Amino acid sequence: MQVLHERIRRDGRVLPGDVLAVGSFLNHQLDAALLDELGAEFYRRFDGAGVQRILTVEASGIALACFAARHFRVPAVFAKKARSSNLPAGVYSAPVHSYTHSTEYQVHVAREFLPAGERVLIIDDFLAHGAALDGLARIVEKAGCTLAGAGIAIEKGFQGGGDRLRSGGVRVESLAIVDAMEPDGSIRFRGE
Amino acid sequence: MQVLHERIRRDGRVLPGDVLAVGSFLNHQLDAALLDELGAEFYRRFDGAGVQRILTVEASGIALACFAARHFRVPAVFAKKARSSNLPAGVYSAPVHSYTHSTEYQVHVAREFLPAGERVLIIDDFLAHGAALDGLARIVEKAGCTLAGAGIAIEKGFQGGGDRLRSGGVRVESLAIVDAMEPDGSIRFRGE
Repeated sequence: MQVLHERIRRDGRVLPGDVLAVGSFLNHQLDAALLDELGAEFYRRFDGAGVQRILTVEASGIALACFAARHFRVPAVFAKKARSSNLPAGVYSAPVHSYTHSTEYQVHVAREFLPAGERVLIIDDFLAHGAALDGLARIVEKAGCTLAGAGIAIEKGFQGGGDRLRSGGVRVESLAIVDAMEPDGSIRFRGE
Repeated sequence: MQVLHERIRRDGRVLPGDVLAVGSFLNHQLDAALLDELGAEFYRRFDGAGVQRILTVEASGIALACFAARHFRVPAVFAKKARSSNLPAGVYSAPVHSYTHSTEYQVHVAREFLPAGERVLIIDDFLAHGAALDGLARIVEKAGCTLAGAGIAIEKGFQGGGDRLRSGGVRVESLAIVDAMEPDGSIRFRGE
């Protein structure tokens, strides 16, 4: 998606440890107009896929999921990273390995907000190794729902998660796939 | 705001420990159409207040801040609750006491996303004792910005944070102020 490629090239920063910092528009400071455009693009790509619900994980997936939900006109649900005292008793949980922090955490979704039988679209800001997506997909399965696919803003193609999931039959639509990035800030997008 | 009062009465649940659970539309499952309406209402109330930036805190404030940002056409920034390895070096931080979890945590905002001299509107889903708002207001002050006010979806009026802040000169606009709630689910809103 051209507008996202340009924005990443302009405002993204390549940091040590294969980090692409896009906090100026995607996951710390939020550019609502851009995120709304991305939401509309997910809707365009998954139109006809029968999406009934959007699932993401806190915190940085929430903004994108909100704008996607606005276009799909379906509820969005975000998985929580810690069992909150306010969380209803019945939850679906799955473990997620964090490569960034070298830890494992649990994600939880209240059962009542993931009714069995629905077609669920996972939305997230980043896809790298695919750990968060694996966890969310497992929750979709536990809930007896069908995974309609995954809509990702930025896929780090060189970390392999997206291609692994596609090989496994998941429809992954990433609006920008970074196949290589260098400390000098140069970025090669797939398809360019 | 009538639509929010009705929604709280219909879908909210009063739980032990003065908890009003509204995860079905506000902070776990998200009703994008409703949140967009709330965002528009904040814009109506703060129109003319010169708002240049919206500030909230992860995770449950993000959805509301996104939709508010769409109407104000300004950037939204969310404070992070833990120092992330991806966070830029320079951050403004403030402590927040959590009454729910009886702990204290730090909130952080990258300095570059809170430029000095701007008029900042704080948005959050809940206002109870006002601890999160105190922390965010402190960050606004540290950044050399001016607090235009606070836009809150649900204020728990009986916990006093909103009135304390108003007495201190902060403009607090809450779309629903709960002055009393009972285990049987009955709720009294201020102004009714």
